[in-house]
Amino acid sequence: MLALRRGLAARERRLGRGMLNISDETLEPEDWQDFRRQGHRMLDDMFDYLENLRDRPVWQPIPPEVRDVFYQPMPSQAGELSAAHQTFMQDILPYAIGNAHPGFMGWVHGGGTSVGMLAEMLAAGLNANLGGREQIPVEVERQLVRWVRDLFSFPAEASGLFVTGTSMANLISVLVARTAMLGRAVRVEGLSAACHLTAYTSASAHVSIAQAMDMAGIGTLALRKIPLNANFQMDTVALERAIAADIAAGMTPFLIAATAGTVDVGAIDTLDEIASIAKGCGLWFHVDGAYGALGMLASDIAEQLKGIERADSIAFDFHKWGQVPYDAGFVLVRDGTLHHDTFASPAAYLQREVRGMAAGSPWPCDYGPDLSRGFRALKTWFTLQVYGAEKLGRVISKTCALAQYLRTRIEAEPTLELLAPVALNIVCFRYRSTDLHNAQIVLALQESGIAAPSSTTLNGQLAIRAAIVNHRTQVCDIDALIEATLKFAADLPLERE
Amino acid sequence: MLALRRGLAARERRLGRGMLNISDETLEPEDWQDFRRQGHRMLDDMFDYLENLRDRPVWQPIPPEVRDVFYQPMPSQAGELSAAHQTFMQDILPYAIGNAHPGFMGWVHGGGTSVGMLAEMLAAGLNANLGGREQIPVEVERQLVRWVRDLFSFPAEASGLFVTGTSMANLISVLVARTAMLGRAVRVEGLSAACHLTAYTSASAHVSIAQAMDMAGIGTLALRKIPLNANFQMDTVALERAIAADIAAGMTPFLIAATAGTVDVGAIDTLDEIASIAKGCGLWFHVDGAYGALGMLASDIAEQLKGIERADSIAFDFHKWGQVPYDAGFVLVRDGTLHHDTFASPAAYLQREVRGMAAGSPWPCDYGPDLSRGFRALKTWFTLQVYGAEKLGRVISKTCALAQYLRTRIEAEPTLELLAPVALNIVCFRYRSTDLHNAQIVLALQESGIAAPSSTTLNGQLAIRAAIVNHRTQVCDIDALIEATLKFAADLPLERE
Repeated sequence: MLALRRGLAARERRLGRGMLNISDETLEPEDWQDFRRQGHRMLDDMFDYLENLRDRPVWQPIPPEVRDVFYQPMPSQAGELSAAHQTFMQDILPYAIGNAHPGFMGWVHGGGTSVGMLAEMLAAGLNANLGGREQIPVEVERQLVRWVRDLFSFPAEASGLFVTGTSMANLISVLVARTAMLGRAVRVEGLSAACHLTAYTSASAHVSIAQAMDMAGIGTLALRKIPLNANFQMDTVALERAIAADIAAGMTPFLIAATAGTVDVGAIDTLDEIASIAKGCGLWFHVDGAYGALGMLASDIAEQLKGIERADSIAFDFHKWGQVPYDAGFVLVRDGTLHHDTFASPAAYLQREVRGMAAGSPWPCDYGPDLSRGFRALKTWFTLQVYGAEKLGRVISKTCALAQYLRTRIEAEPTLELLAPVALNIVCFRYRSTDLHNAQIVLALQESGIAAPSSTTLNGQLAIRAAIVNHRTQVCDIDALIEATLKFAADLPLERE
Repeated sequence: MLALRRGLAARERRLGRGMLNISDETLEPEDWQDFRRQGHRMLDDMFDYLENLRDRPVWQPIPPEVRDVFYQPMPSQAGELSAAHQTFMQDILPYAIGNAHPGFMGWVHGGGTSVGMLAEMLAAGLNANLGGREQIPVEVERQLVRWVRDLFSFPAEASGLFVTGTSMANLISVLVARTAMLGRAVRVEGLSAACHLTAYTSASAHVSIAQAMDMAGIGTLALRKIPLNANFQMDTVALERAIAADIAAGMTPFLIAATAGTVDVGAIDTLDEIASIAKGCGLWFHVDGAYGALGMLASDIAEQLKGIERADSIAFDFHKWGQVPYDAGFVLVRDGTLHHDTFASPAAYLQREVRGMAAGSPWPCDYGPDLSRGFRALKTWFTLQVYGAEKLGRVISKTCALAQYLRTRIEAEPTLELLAPVALNIVCFRYRSTDLHNAQIVLALQESGIAAPSSTTLNGQLAIRAAIVNHRTQVCDIDALIEATLKFAADLPLERE
């Protein structure tokens, strides 16, 4: 085979390639040795960055002259790789949002790992499209599906798929639930006003649940936002009442979307109880476990997730508590056939064979909207192979222990006030002062580069919100947050609102 | 700031971290020097792979024992990075689908580049979430949006977004078109049967157009598949007739989705003419330019795309003709406000500020379904910075020149038959024999590792389909395809169907 290819290349040289008037220009490096040296420098720069994160500010404001760098028009001519890399090191890397840094607590972002970085490099070099076809990369994704299935005690018929993130996983789940209620005909005929679908989630559910209802054509009005109990969980009495009222009014309830780890305070809905309500009413039981679901890896947190194993679908991200680099969301569906039937489409260019490159059906593209799909499974596979499930679980537990430590530090400071119970790894608190003062404290913290919490609104009050997700975060980072909060609170003038 | 952090760390050591009973375990390497060495070995292995692609088969069947490797349960204990990497080199990399190889012509997959690989490594180490917030990575994406906007001569108010691929970009476009016709209320109220939306695309449009109609709740029945003319383009007389018939029947036409580079044969719909029809009827004019739209970078192909600059939305992939590693799709929308209003949602944890980390609104998450989004812009930015638009355009032109060369070789062989005009870079042909014989030839080609075309069905006949997308493909690869096709056709027994 190789002899044939080389023979042809030789024949072509004899014929004179120029006669064909076809360029032989490629995007290969002109000098591989030079190129390799530059590549190794780039890798070393990233190792330096990751090894010395603590020497940097968590975040820093963007100077106008740095922003201006990115207002150049599209380059028409080729440039040096080293020049592009220099711009990256000088003007991009220092002005990222900072979630790799141990002091980042702004939002539920994972920290990433150097293992994940290397795996992503391999995936990009291989350049696999995981839409389907007969290739081992698809087998790696299937192995991950089996691992996730087993983690949540789902049956062998369950299906799963990597997606960008939980927002997409929630959309896929809503669409499968729509098919479960209305049948496959809904794909062809669309929604008719006559079906009057209604769904249920808590008032603190992620916005992507409503967005999924919107995108699916059902509309956000059909999503009932059930009030919270004192623990910021869905009030199940109110839930049952809402379902009963809708049935009485001639509506068609089809879905309950519970949350495992709410975005604001990290509350976990009472999953087992909600599972029973869903089963009792014949509704689809979805769990948005964007970051909380991977708590299954930690024995102390898995207990709090009891009932998740009864879900019809689960959405979560490996790039949060799983520390896999962005993006790596996942959707798991109990009924793999229904999942398949919600997305699979016939097309001549997607024809399946029993041999050759078009074998191996069903393909990942039969389970979601994407035909072009990067190899997200690889960075996740490397993460699990290198760290193992137990260590990942211990790191998840550690973030929760740090949150409890932060709680005790807040409770020990008379000027600070806890604003919500700490169920997992998110702590919402405030300096006993005005909302404006607290907002200024958050900005001062962020701009100082010491610690990066965010703010949210709880029961009408502005809260300083610390989400501890990064495996690199330690006790000293919690202490730094408290010390700096107290310092800025004292330094900043208290303005009247 | 750093002094404060270090002072706290020292205080903590004095207090004795053990008293807190909080582990300080992280996922950092135990020995950075060892880890770095392993990382550089991994990079060298990928350089070796990319530099010597031609020594490998394009694709090879997966031996059962290799597949079995991926049936192990999730590892509970940590493993060596070198062991995971060895599995990658031995059992994953050799069994990918082969689109990095110059002999790959199976589907419209880009080849990737070593520059893209390095950029993806940087992005994974940085681990940015491009959902939003005040960070330069978002500015890099905004720069790409401006570059794309200028490439297609769109106005300053146009908006754009990186997505996984064109399937997602098509969905976003259908949803914006839905909002354009029904107003923002559709997001809240959902679709009512009373609206009777209808859309129009050609019979050879990509399946993702129908899937977008399905997901959006409109249903695939409302998508009129307009027949093709002899050039495999949408028949515009039939299009106008279909719109008129629907209006007469009380339907509400809202969208025409034209194609720039059909998946089967690479045909480009008559965009300028269709733009006029859409404007005349007040319909949204969408162009699915999955791979063809980037032909704008090549002056000879840009001419064929005339009319694309009149589109209301364009969907395309950088990972096809743009050679950016998977995945890197893009959607461009003329009316940025409408695009924003189709996706933006209020949420306390997404609150915007004028200072600090939550500044910089609007954010990318306001323009699409994803809040968790990897840094796809970076590998695209590096690709354009290092190669420049002109060279990328020349490589695109080269793939079309190679397709014309393949056409001439087919026309010169009496046993071969061309099955469709060659508008761009896709060539559909057959050996003058039965469908079964041609299917066997395709399998033999794939399994030989010499060349990897696919098969499709055109006008009821099985076609051997060669899609030339990879920048590495040369004249010798086309010759190898022809020689091997003739050899296998002669060797394989002709079975009766």
